[in-house]
Amino acid sequence: MSKSRKRYSRKIKHTPPGTSPGTIVSPPGACPTFIDLIAYGPEGVYEKRIDDWSEVHQAMQKYPVVWVNIEGLGNSELVTQAGDIFGIHRLALEDVMNIQERSKLEQYGENSFFVVHMAEMKESLETEKLSIYTSKKFVVTFQDGPIDVMNPVRERIRKGNGLIRKMGTDYLTYAVVDAVIDSYFPVLEAYGDLLDKLEEGIIEKPERQMVAQIHSLKKEFFSLKRMAWSLRDAISAFLRDASPLYSPETRIYFRDCYDHTITVLDFVETYREFLSDLMDIYLSSLSNRTNEVMKVMAIFTSLFVPPTLIAGIYGMNFHTQLSPYNMPELTWYFGYPYALGLMLAVSLSILGLLYWKGWLGSLKIRSK
Amino acid sequence: MSKSRKRYSRKIKHTPPGTSPGTIVSPPGACPTFIDLIAYGPEGVYEKRIDDWSEVHQAMQKYPVVWVNIEGLGNSELVTQAGDIFGIHRLALEDVMNIQERSKLEQYGENSFFVVHMAEMKESLETEKLSIYTSKKFVVTFQDGPIDVMNPVRERIRKGNGLIRKMGTDYLTYAVVDAVIDSYFPVLEAYGDLLDKLEEGIIEKPERQMVAQIHSLKKEFFSLKRMAWSLRDAISAFLRDASPLYSPETRIYFRDCYDHTITVLDFVETYREFLSDLMDIYLSSLSNRTNEVMKVMAIFTSLFVPPTLIAGIYGMNFHTQLSPYNMPELTWYFGYPYALGLMLAVSLSILGLLYWKGWLGSLKIRSK
Amino acid sequence: MSKSRKRYSRKIKHTPPGTSPGTIVSPPGACPTFIDLIAYGPEGVYEKRIDDWSEVHQAMQKYPVVWVNIEGLGNSELVTQAGDIFGIHRLALEDVMNIQERSKLEQYGENSFFVVHMAEMKESLETEKLSIYTSKKFVVTFQDGPIDVMNPVRERIRKGNGLIRKMGTDYLTYAVVDAVIDSYFPVLEAYGDLLDKLEEGIIEKPERQMVAQIHSLKKEFFSLKRMAWSLRDAISAFLRDASPLYSPETRIYFRDCYDHTITVLDFVETYREFLSDLMDIYLSSLSNRTNEVMKVMAIFTSLFVPPTLIAGIYGMNFHTQLSPYNMPELTWYFGYPYALGLMLAVSLSILGLLYWKGWLGSLKIRSK
Amino acid sequence: MSKSRKRYSRKIKHTPPGTSPGTIVSPPGACPTFIDLIAYGPEGVYEKRIDDWSEVHQAMQKYPVVWVNIEGLGNSELVTQAGDIFGIHRLALEDVMNIQERSKLEQYGENSFFVVHMAEMKESLETEKLSIYTSKKFVVTFQDGPIDVMNPVRERIRKGNGLIRKMGTDYLTYAVVDAVIDSYFPVLEAYGDLLDKLEEGIIEKPERQMVAQIHSLKKEFFSLKRMAWSLRDAISAFLRDASPLYSPETRIYFRDCYDHTITVLDFVETYREFLSDLMDIYLSSLSNRTNEVMKVMAIFTSLFVPPTLIAGIYGMNFHTQLSPYNMPELTWYFGYPYALGLMLAVSLSILGLLYWKGWLGSLKIRSK
Amino acid sequence: MSKSRKRYSRKIKHTPPGTSPGTIVSPPGACPTFIDLIAYGPEGVYEKRIDDWSEVHQAMQKYPVVWVNIEGLGNSELVTQAGDIFGIHRLALEDVMNIQERSKLEQYGENSFFVVHMAEMKESLETEKLSIYTSKKFVVTFQDGPIDVMNPVRERIRKGNGLIRKMGTDYLTYAVVDAVIDSYFPVLEAYGDLLDKLEEGIIEKPERQMVAQIHSLKKEFFSLKRMAWSLRDAISAFLRDASPLYSPETRIYFRDCYDHTITVLDFVETYREFLSDLMDIYLSSLSNRTNEVMKVMAIFTSLFVPPTLIAGIYGMNFHTQLSPYNMPELTWYFGYPYALGLMLAVSLSILGLLYWKGWLGSLKIRSK
Repeated sequence: MSKSRKRYSRKIKHTPPGTSPGTIVSPPGACPTFIDLIAYGPEGVYEKRIDDWSEVHQAMQKYPVVWVNIEGLGNSELVTQAGDIFGIHRLALEDVMNIQERSKLEQYGENSFFVVHMAEMKESLETEKLSIYTSKKFVVTFQDGPIDVMNPVRERIRKGNGLIRKMGTDYLTYAVVDAVIDSYFPVLEAYGDLLDKLEEGIIEKPERQMVAQIHSLKKEFFSLKRMAWSLRDAISAFLRDASPLYSPETRIYFRDCYDHTITVLDFVETYREFLSDLMDIYLSSLSNRTNEVMKVMAIFTSLFVPPTLIAGIYGMNFHTQLSPYNMPELTWYFGYPYALGLMLAVSLSILGLLYWKGWLGSLKIRSK
Repeated sequence: MSKSRKRYSRKIKHTPPGTSPGTIVSPPGACPTFIDLIAYGPEGVYEKRIDDWSEVHQAMQKYPVVWVNIEGLGNSELVTQAGDIFGIHRLALEDVMNIQERSKLEQYGENSFFVVHMAEMKESLETEKLSIYTSKKFVVTFQDGPIDVMNPVRERIRKGNGLIRKMGTDYLTYAVVDAVIDSYFPVLEAYGDLLDKLEEGIIEKPERQMVAQIHSLKKEFFSLKRMAWSLRDAISAFLRDASPLYSPETRIYFRDCYDHTITVLDFVETYREFLSDLMDIYLSSLSNRTNEVMKVMAIFTSLFVPPTLIAGIYGMNFHTQLSPYNMPELTWYFGYPYALGLMLAVSLSILGLLYWKGWLGSLKIRSK
Repeated sequence: MSKSRKRYSRKIKHTPPGTSPGTIVSPPGACPTFIDLIAYGPEGVYEKRIDDWSEVHQAMQKYPVVWVNIEGLGNSELVTQAGDIFGIHRLALEDVMNIQERSKLEQYGENSFFVVHMAEMKESLETEKLSIYTSKKFVVTFQDGPIDVMNPVRERIRKGNGLIRKMGTDYLTYAVVDAVIDSYFPVLEAYGDLLDKLEEGIIEKPERQMVAQIHSLKKEFFSLKRMAWSLRDAISAFLRDASPLYSPETRIYFRDCYDHTITVLDFVETYREFLSDLMDIYLSSLSNRTNEVMKVMAIFTSLFVPPTLIAGIYGMNFHTQLSPYNMPELTWYFGYPYALGLMLAVSLSILGLLYWKGWLGSLKIRSK
Repeated sequence: MSKSRKRYSRKIKHTPPGTSPGTIVSPPGACPTFIDLIAYGPEGVYEKRIDDWSEVHQAMQKYPVVWVNIEGLGNSELVTQAGDIFGIHRLALEDVMNIQERSKLEQYGENSFFVVHMAEMKESLETEKLSIYTSKKFVVTFQDGPIDVMNPVRERIRKGNGLIRKMGTDYLTYAVVDAVIDSYFPVLEAYGDLLDKLEEGIIEKPERQMVAQIHSLKKEFFSLKRMAWSLRDAISAFLRDASPLYSPETRIYFRDCYDHTITVLDFVETYREFLSDLMDIYLSSLSNRTNEVMKVMAIFTSLFVPPTLIAGIYGMNFHTQLSPYNMPELTWYFGYPYALGLMLAVSLSILGLLYWKGWLGSLKIRSK
Repeated sequence: MSKSRKRYSRKIKHTPPGTSPGTIVSPPGACPTFIDLIAYGPEGVYEKRIDDWSEVHQAMQKYPVVWVNIEGLGNSELVTQAGDIFGIHRLALEDVMNIQERSKLEQYGENSFFVVHMAEMKESLETEKLSIYTSKKFVVTFQDGPIDVMNPVRERIRKGNGLIRKMGTDYLTYAVVDAVIDSYFPVLEAYGDLLDKLEEGIIEKPERQMVAQIHSLKKEFFSLKRMAWSLRDAISAFLRDASPLYSPETRIYFRDCYDHTITVLDFVETYREFLSDLMDIYLSSLSNRTNEVMKVMAIFTSLFVPPTLIAGIYGMNFHTQLSPYNMPELTWYFGYPYALGLMLAVSLSILGLLYWKGWLGSLKIRSK
């Protein structure tokens, strides 16, 4: 519970109202900042963790593509320097520093600025923002946290696999965005397994804490949906409004990204609908059980209350010797067996009636 | 249960995150690959299962339309060769190999690439992807699995029925897409029968496992809806954005396809709404039965508890001889019949009250 | 039940999958075919049931407007002939023969092809397709079944009422479509009465079979909605995309048609919402009654169980002569009246408590 | 009930199916017709109830703006005359005579034809159609019924308040439409008060007839919503498609109308959502009360049934003198007090258990 | 209750129906009017509370940007004067005076008129309208009430922080709108905390008054949503339709505003969905508890009723000495222990049966 408790207010971390726009402040709890440089072209790759911005300029002169990854946003000064060196708009830098759930694409002149979110399934869903600033000559990515989905991209650059070394910064941007979208699929698979287990549980043995589980999953899918939906919007806007930075060839690849985002959205929507159905099944199962508890009670009542009346009758103290009408059964030779027999007969008749009415037939209380 | 259990995660088969885009890998469990060539024109038909791509080139020179059907995607090398020979974009080939539920239409230059899904009702709904790559001279179709809806098209080509032999690759594409859409109608009919039976069952004898059945049908309709919806989107996009490959005459035929897709969607939506209603009916029926069980209990309680009190009263041990007020009934000559009569009278009064209040009248417990 | 049972699958009558498009086959159970010719102009009217197509040609030369109504689709050959003579596209002819629920407007060159549905309320809702093919010189209508809404139009032609004789085929098309839309209003009125009765019933005496009735009405409204919705789409498309066949004057009349369709849709939507509300009222009424049954039981239990305990106490066999503490009440002079009084007092106290708590006040079990 | 009973079918008053379009027939129960003329300009005002159309022509020559209000539609001949004199299209006249709930704006050439609805809250919501036909020189308004919202407009004309005397027919049209929209606000306020009372009632003392009340309000809001929605559509269409009749200055005023309509729609939507919530609260309150009735019963059962068992035990007739094991308590000196004490102890233990489990704490049955 | 009671009707404060449009009347309960002037440019700032409009003219000649804030709308004459001096349209002034919930942007020629709402969380949500009229030379803001979000903007002007002193009236407008949007975030955070607490409460100890709380929050979110939604519409319209007053640089900043509004909307939507889920959880929890109360009752009934029957049997008065069959147990040496043992055995068997059926296992009544 304690984890989900702070789910809502925790997400609203915003600079104080009235702050001058474009103020660059590290988000609370940000990690220390490291700067990784990868510069490459068809002929070679240069990779280094740098402290000195001059290396970036040198790399830009030697290689067609320069990729600077800024990991950890704790050092707001370094981030501001990066903004100045690469000519990043103040509002984009502010977006880098904000915590937010919405993906977006913004054009700053010829340059494009993507905000996307990487996902990973640990104990629960973890997400992390990745900001990608792309110009003709360089790509700058900002991230803060432990999730890293860009290693396969780096691997492909190092090994020269596929097209990546032959293409420009636009293709690199695509490769990173694609890697981010790909990070959703294992998460969806994990959720699929979880839902399968939950469904089995609810159908076979509904339990109260499952409602809380459904509710908590709903909240996670709500986040997921928002991320996927805004990502779809961003890529769709990208496909619509052509920026000359991106070659037609790369656009075809982004169309593929769009497709994958739609698939992610489809799954999230399916899962959400599925959860609503599970809630319905849970409730119908509760009603069913109330119904069956009622039946058990009705059966016990019907079986034991009538014989109790009979016993009560023969427990009355009418004076048998004063009148032949006063409970002559009490003096019969087989009075007691007769009374017991009467009780049994009444109970059995009622049982028979209930059985004939179809009650016992449909009474299936779950055995453990 | 075991079948639906893996429904969700099973659908998410995706290349590992970070894979270089355009990597051609057979999907898991793919069938061995066969290549069937049909080449035809107004004058004649040539049909052969081929091993050698050179025959394709020969056929292209002799016949105006060449249709290559690649059945089974197990041999990724053959698929890649086909891609090279027919000039199919890598991303299209990757789509051929992926498992996905969404139909689509993509333009690669002048050529069009359709992804559609064939449906068949076996024990449950089975679907299978069909990818159709169309250029001026040839149509390449890819499929993997046992469903084949294209036989009637082949028949029409062989026999020269209708227009097909006189028209180009655009009409062939239409014929295949139309056959795919036609494959939905028997499936819908089967679902219609199933729903009719389910409705009858729920109204006449609601049972617990029907909830699971409704839920499972909902999931299947969700898939169906997604397929039909994306198909509609694809054909609608096709009708909007004219590619010069398709003649105006063929477009009119595609408009007809669009109509059929709308009909499929209508049915799926109707079925989905119908299922929600069935759930409501089930729940109202449960409430009804709880209500009736309660009534039975209330009747038993009301009938037997008051006489039990009377019996209890005359079972008290007040000393009758000490006072004329101490239960003189016990010494009456007709004391016992009077007591029994009192019990009966009380029970009958209550029964009468309940009847007058309209309870017994509406008590209709289902007989088996 | 048996009527609604086949509602779903019954609607899906489609040519077998893979049939060559444009195949003209009579729908199953179609009526024999009759051909009625009405030719008219400002000066006169010529009306005849014809067997010979040559009369059509003669009429076309003598009168500005020729209206051929083909009643009954049983003779597929005659229908095909009509298609050839009037130059109707094969797909339009196929649509004439299909059973479908969706209205539409299609343009074939300059000519327009409307598919609409007439409605009539007999025992339940009956609908019948009407296909209208309009060119500059003639209107061909196809129908199959007992509903005929076009008689008032014929009357107006015969008598020369209103504008109809002075206008062209476009106005005739309008007049027919308008008559079709007008056929919905008596149906809606009949449904309105039915809903009023159902509402009264549910509020005053909810019964179980009303759920089935609501469900069945829902299905009928779903059909109605689909028909009205697609009709709205068709007329809206007509108003948007001007075909030169229709004069601006006639377009104003079609705008009026559009308005009426919107009114029909409004009613259908209102009715659908109303039905959902009735279901809610039914369920709340069920809950209410369960609640009241529970109250009756609680009252009986509370009233009779405590006195039973008191009777039980004085039925114990403690030996009063052994100790002054052992049930001295049994030997009191007014012991029995005291015991009865105690019982009454306890019962009345409980009754008072329940009344004070507001239970009895809100207990209103429906009298018959 | 009787009032809402005919709500649905009563609204469908339509000319018989197949009537020639443009037929001018008075609606059933229409009032006698009066014709009021107001002609004005910056310099003066002329106002008269007229019988003779010639006065209209004279007024048109002397004043820039002529406003003819036709009150009561009983005299269809007079209405037809008005149509001829002012050149109103037949379909517009037919709309004047029809009973309908949908507002609309139609352009007939340069002239505009508004259909709007005035609202007034009497015992329940009353609405009345107002048709406004506007040309360069005159405005004709048609109404039938007791609601009149145009008096303040007349007052402003008479007194020359505001801009109205200086502006043309376009501004007069605006003034009338604005007065109509303003008539919704007191209605909404009345509904607001009603809902506040209903909410208070449901939370404090839910009663069965409130469901019917909610349902009846829902139907009224449905009507209101439809009127406001269609009005919004009409004004929005007006703002989009500029007719040269309306000056840019007047358009700014219509933009203000649009704003007010949106506000009305907002309120109606809020109220509708609020009603759904009230239904939920009602149902949850019902569940709550069932729950509490169950608790009371469970408490009575638990308190009285166990002591009854004890009393029953000591009422058994085992022969104490035959064995020291046979109910020696019966012969104890403090046997009876012991038995009573045992009963009390058992009851108190159970009460304690229930209290400890938190049952009694949450048992709050509503006092009257 | 008393606070929410007047929620609905209280919001509808509108000028009386039929009032001449553009009438400037103070809203009821408006505060006294003060006029604050801030004039600034890159070189300096001049700030004063003024009584005399002539100072405004002087400031406009000396400084590039003049900002007049009119606080309190009680003096309608002063407001009208302001309108005349700054050339504000009458309808805009009327909007300033109206109470309304909808934000909007309107263009009056080159000038723009924003209506936005500031939010603050005190005991409950408080909102206050802010009207912003912007021209090339000046910005006039109107507000009435205690909420003031513009102090940080004033601070930035005074200190010359950020860009604000270097930019024109367009940037000032942006700065004010941004401050208004920023005022929503602390409100959302407060709601987040409230929802977290409510969720915890409902899951751990559901109580009746929580329904009213959920309902009341829903109403507040409905207001919030409407405000945020209309704000989004206004800013989106602003971004679409370029007014030359706003420089491209400032537009980028407004794009950022748009983003923040979307974030606000996202949160409001999440909260609304979350509330619906809480209602579901509450109801499922109620069902669960009814179910458990039923179980407790069933257990008590099953445990105590059968032994009571046994006790009743041995309380019968059959004459043991008349027949060896007449309750010989009464004369057994261990008769009484045997009877007690029988009772215990029966109770334990039933308990065992219930346990084996899985009832006791799932019976978890909440301890306090």
